[in-house]
Amino acid sequence: MESDTQLFLSNESFVTESGVELPSVTIAYHTYGKLNEDRSNVIWVCHALTANSEVADWWPHTVEKGRFLDPDRYFIVCANILGSHYGTTGPLSVNSLTGEPYYNDFPIVSVRDMVKIHQRLARHLGIDHVALLIGSSLGGFQCMEWAVMEPDFAKRLVLIATTPVSRPWAAAFNESQRMCIEADSTFGQRRPDAAMAGLAAARSIALLSYRGGRAYDLTQADTAERRPDGYPLKRRVHSYQRHQGDKLCNRFNAYSYYRLSQAVDAHDIGWNRGGIEKALSTITAKTMVIAIKGDILFPPADHRELVEFIPDCRYHEIESDFGHDGFLIEYETLDRLIKAHMNQ
Amino acid sequence: MESDTQLFLSNESFVTESGVELPSVTIAYHTYGKLNEDRSNVIWVCHALTANSEVADWWPHTVEKGRFLDPDRYFIVCANILGSHYGTTGPLSVNSLTGEPYYNDFPIVSVRDMVKIHQRLARHLGIDHVALLIGSSLGGFQCMEWAVMEPDFAKRLVLIATTPVSRPWAAAFNESQRMCIEADSTFGQRRPDAAMAGLAAARSIALLSYRGGRAYDLTQADTAERRPDGYPLKRRVHSYQRHQGDKLCNRFNAYSYYRLSQAVDAHDIGWNRGGIEKALSTITAKTMVIAIKGDILFPPADHRELVEFIPDCRYHEIESDFGHDGFLIEYETLDRLIKAHMNQ
Repeated sequence: MESDTQLFLSNESFVTESGVELPSVTIAYHTYGKLNEDRSNVIWVCHALTANSEVADWWPHTVEKGRFLDPDRYFIVCANILGSHYGTTGPLSVNSLTGEPYYNDFPIVSVRDMVKIHQRLARHLGIDHVALLIGSSLGGFQCMEWAVMEPDFAKRLVLIATTPVSRPWAAAFNESQRMCIEADSTFGQRRPDAAMAGLAAARSIALLSYRGGRAYDLTQADTAERRPDGYPLKRRVHSYQRHQGDKLCNRFNAYSYYRLSQAVDAHDIGWNRGGIEKALSTITAKTMVIAIKGDILFPPADHRELVEFIPDCRYHEIESDFGHDGFLIEYETLDRLIKAHMNQ
Repeated sequence: MESDTQLFLSNESFVTESGVELPSVTIAYHTYGKLNEDRSNVIWVCHALTANSEVADWWPHTVEKGRFLDPDRYFIVCANILGSHYGTTGPLSVNSLTGEPYYNDFPIVSVRDMVKIHQRLARHLGIDHVALLIGSSLGGFQCMEWAVMEPDFAKRLVLIATTPVSRPWAAAFNESQRMCIEADSTFGQRRPDAAMAGLAAARSIALLSYRGGRAYDLTQADTAERRPDGYPLKRRVHSYQRHQGDKLCNRFNAYSYYRLSQAVDAHDIGWNRGGIEKALSTITAKTMVIAIKGDILFPPADHRELVEFIPDCRYHEIESDFGHDGFLIEYETLDRLIKAHMNQ
């Protein structure tokens, strides 16, 4: 399903939760399908850490006829998040006050900031409510924030492989990644390819949390290529980690990665709202929470409070050999569950 | 239990499995207690990644009267491993051919190399067999190698939180750490404090594998210090990761860390011996294998082949909230199991 990136320039200034004013914000987004007359067929997808607004590209077999993101039935919107690399205002955008890109001067942004600028896009598109708001991982953070900030917005909500608050171990993964990026002495240099070695290492670390031991056993076991005539130093998985690091470097930048990981760590649905229970209990959307068995980043236990405190909530735990990455891979199971939820 | 570091200089040259000749090797070691007349009371302890020969220091409550490392009964030996930072020949040692420390020119070493130089120390000390050979993690790698290379050496063997072959996910953790160290552009510089930022980040990553989500939840949960008046950016666990990184930098060097992690990844008890089963089946020692529930680095499943293929083998799985680090913390349980094994 092909679709072009569209840009919306909001000229109203935006103040981040960290207290920095951006004179304007650009929001990059994709849409699929057509908005119907009574504007009742919108599905809004929130994307995760290093993804972009092109859902059909990063979430295979979802934007297709007959699938839960059927463009013949729904008007599907996905917008790139604040601070990212794919067209929405971020560290590589030009700061109009200096005429130079922000790079590391880009402010710390929060998940709530991400939602607030997407609310501007929704208004711009004439959308005041959606049939479904859906996201996985950091996408789920945004969806739950949106459902709390604007309870009338989403009729239905689907939260996949996510958590109401970043737990210590997950935050420790992110801190380790930032330490890597900082260890690269080119971090801080005012160029888009600064800290690429650090970024590659950070991505390599992140992968360890996206897929656990079982997924690695299944896909990275050593075979005959282990050197028969010397000590078997080189492992297949070594090349895999480096290859994945390089791949991210070819499509992202270290400043965006650093800022987005900070937003992840600061995520707490209950912050400044009297706690997690109080915040979640204000959600009025018909909600489905889907956790993945074997997800070590946001394990099923992380979903407990969502299920306990969101008033109208169903829970499913799905099987996957691929841990957290299961949300991208188990599309058949997700399709079945989400379509059932839409018909509820 | 105080004890001084002793040094043994072996003037015979040593050729590593990677094919590099070291003109001589120095081995740093500690002993506790007294060797008896018939030399039958030796316990040899093999240490893990960043530890040293001073067992009484890094393994609390073990070298004590009444414990399994009772210095009144046993003559306890622990030697620092080849490539390490604590007195045995390693990257900071002077290469006699150049008159300069090796730094990054230090050869790649293997677990088998580590054992071979410790065999020299055993001969030097007049020890041709031990009552018990014991090690955890990389210490366990050395013990199982020794038991295969010299089946008459150990009467009893205890292998804790270890694996017969480095699995892909564990090797991916190590590769990520080496990518971090390489991302620090001071890596390669000929000074002992090169790549300290990279080493700190590497240690931060390693900790994620030593303790899983549960241990972090127990010890690093955020409390009232989260900023009430701004976005809660700073998490308690962030300081913890940096502190642990700094602590390692104060006592280790990046070149040793890099080489030891390569030795870990290349570990395969079956390599060049016709496979894991064939190698393990040659072990004649009365063996006890102890795995830790919740160890994500070397989980209980990694111990299966040890138990299946070592002919005389008992297996225990112990509980710990601290994952892989449980081998350092659950000393009461280990003491009970190991003493029972000694009396078997």
